[in-house]
This record gives sequence, C-alpha cells and structure tokens, in this order.
Amino acid sequence: MRRFVVLGRTATAGADFSLDDLPGSSGRLDVLLRCVRAALLLSHGLRRDTAIYLVLQGGPLAPRTIRIDGRTAEYLRPDERSLAGAVRNLLGRDHSALRGLAFGESTRGVAIALGGLDAVLADLAEGAGTAFTPYMLDEGPGARDVREAPIDLEHPVFFVGDHLGFDDDARARLEALGAQRLSLGPVSVHADDAIVLLANELDRRGCG
Amino acid sequence: MRRFVVLGRTATAGADFSLDDLPGSSGRLDVLLRCVRAALLLSHGLRRDTAIYLVLQGGPLAPRTIRIDGRTAEYLRPDERSLAGAVRNLLGRDHSALRGLAFGESTRGVAIALGGLDAVLADLAEGAGTAFTPYMLDEGPGARDVREAPIDLEHPVFFVGDHLGFDDDARARLEALGAQRLSLGPVSVHADDAIVLLANELDRRGCG
Repeated sequence: MRRFVVLGRTATAGADFSLDDLPGSSGRLDVLLRCVRAALLLSHGLRRDTAIYLVLQGGPLAPRTIRIDGRTAEYLRPDERSLAGAVRNLLGRDHSALRGLAFGESTRGVAIALGGLDAVLADLAEGAGTAFTPYMLDEGPGARDVREAPIDLEHPVFFVGDHLGFDDDARARLEALGAQRLSLGPVSVHADDAIVLLANELDRRGCG
Repeated sequence: MRRFVVLGRTATAGADFSLDDLPGSSGRLDVLLRCVRAALLLSHGLRRDTAIYLVLQGGPLAPRTIRIDGRTAEYLRPDERSLAGAVRNLLGRDHSALRGLAFGESTRGVAIALGGLDAVLADLAEGAGTAFTPYMLDEGPGARDVREAPIDLEHPVFFVGDHLGFDDDARARLEALGAQRLSLGPVSVHADDAIVLLANELDRRGCG
C-alpha cells in the first residue's frame, strides 16, 4: 500500500469556501484536491493500492485531516470542482461524535479525523503497522534522487508539502521520525506533479 | 523549445459550456485544461521554454486550436476554473477575421486558429523550422520507454491523446509524419500525468 500525506498549511478545515473561487476562498485547498487526482486516478481506473491524507491546517476548525483510501473509494471524479464539492460536503457535516485523533467511519473510502499530523501518524501506526517507512519530498542537502533511492515497496509513506512547503514544526517532526528526503529532479514542481512522479517510479518498481 | 499538442476528440471548440460542470458540458475540456497546468506551471513559476496546443474537435465550431506559449504567457493560474474561464472568453470572441489555418495575434501568449491538426502542423513548420522532431505518447508495439529513448532536446514536439486516445485519422497522420512512439511506464495514466512525466525527463536531460 502506498500512502501520500499532503500537508496543507493554509487549506481550510471548514466548509466555508466557494466552489466558484477555490484558490481565493479555501486557503488553496485546490492544491490538495489536485493531489487527490494525481494519487488515486488512472486512465479509466482507480489506484486500489493507494491512500492519500489531506492535512487541513487553515481556518478556525483546523486541524482536520481527510483520508481517501483507494481500496474502498467510489465515484471519484478527476475535476477539481467535483472533488471540492465532495470535500465540502464532508467538512460541513457534524463531526462532534468523533473522539480523539481517530478517523471516523469511512463512507465510500473517505473519512475524517479531528487532528493534523498527529492523527495521520496514529492512523499510520495502526493501519500500516510499525513497519511503514516515511519519506519526505524535499529538495536540498541530503535528498536522494527518487530514481536512485532505495524505497520500501510494501509500506512507503510519502509526505508532501503544499505550495508553501513544510513548516518548521512539520519538518522537525518528520526528521524525528527518520523520514528520508527524496528529490525529483532539477526543477521545483507542484505537489500534484511530485505525486505523479513518485507514483510512476513506484509503478516501474512493481510496487502495489 | 518544448511543445506539447493535446488532441481533444470531443473537447468543445465553442464557448457554450458551463464553468459549473466542465466535464459534463464541455466535452471533457477539463482534461485539456489540466494539461495546460502540467505543461506550463512550476512551483512559483512558468515554464518559458514550453508551448502547448489544445486541439478542440468537439461541437459545431470545431476544429479550432488554442496555443499557449510560455515565452509570452501571463497571469496563468493553475486551477481548472480559472483556466476554463480564460479559454471560454477566448472561444467566445469574434474570430471571423482569421484567415486560413494561421494563428491570430497572441494576447498574453494565447492565440487561436480555425483548424485542428493541420493548423498545428503548419504552425510547427513555421515556428520550429522543419527540424522539429515529433513524438507520440502511445503504448503498444514499437513504443520506447521515455527514460531510454533518444529525444531531440532542441525542437521536440509531443502529441498526446485525451481520455479517448488518438483517433485513427490522427494516428495515421502522426505515423506518416514519422512520429516516434514513447511509453511512460507500466500503467496507463491521464494526459496531464503524461506531460508531467515527459517534462521531468526533459528537465533531467537539460532540455530547455
């Protein structure tokens, strides 16, 4: 199982955004929605071997995290507006019954938790076992080219920053976790492009 | 200069579509719009070494082709709705002054021609000189892995199908042109993902 975790520094955790102006009203949730398509959708199919977490750290309801699991996901459409509508519906529901950092019941593969990176790490420890291997998409010193780096093909977890990159706290926590830095090439690309490039490398290595 | 040509078999050449239901009202123009982001936008920047053609073959006004040239493009935003709005404005204007297959005057890097693949090939012959090298993204017999294939780094032109792939006529014309088949990996991906993977390979080879 491949897992991607996209950390949205400003993406809203509430439903108070407009589908007619996603970039301007949602704290750039559009960046994260494009990552959903990149991670889960194929030409005429859905990647059943992939899950993605969207960590929403913007607005008064933050942090919240949405998890979409390809094993059980249904009716995912590739266009931003459809994805935004589905996320807005989920964010607008009553989640007062949720306890602690646990994800609630999954509906068509989609679930939510009232926490950020904490909730993701708790879920990963439970879902992937302690054996998951964390990687962070991060340029700079110590990063290894994804084409050359050894990658755990059983339980890899890739942490990806949004258009603002990782904040200091997230970076420190990922480093403490032992996350290995991966780079993707000589040019700095969008988060969804990073996921496309990673997925292709995993496909080529027979991961899944 | 890198050039991508996306052939939209059903994407509308008219402005009669709704921004609120792009996939359902535009003949899947959304597929082509995502290719614009993938081809031209970087993390905090624009690829000045890239141009993309969107060949619109759907609806009564077809064929028409939009060309976006990174050398002079401005104000491109990555979200689908913004891109769709810009394209709709362009398609809705009066183009009766256009003659033959030539592209009209470029506004902020964007131009339109009243033709399909013909208009692209005429423009390529003029813009890139006769030296451009055509490639088609196409799985199957004879395709070479993009990581192994020789690629012209000066004037490559990559033809990409939409969600329906190339039609027989386009395929025959590209073959007659001597287009070399490239494959991207073991899994069939969306058109925008194909462009991301190609762009990364070109980046790594120092193309630009």
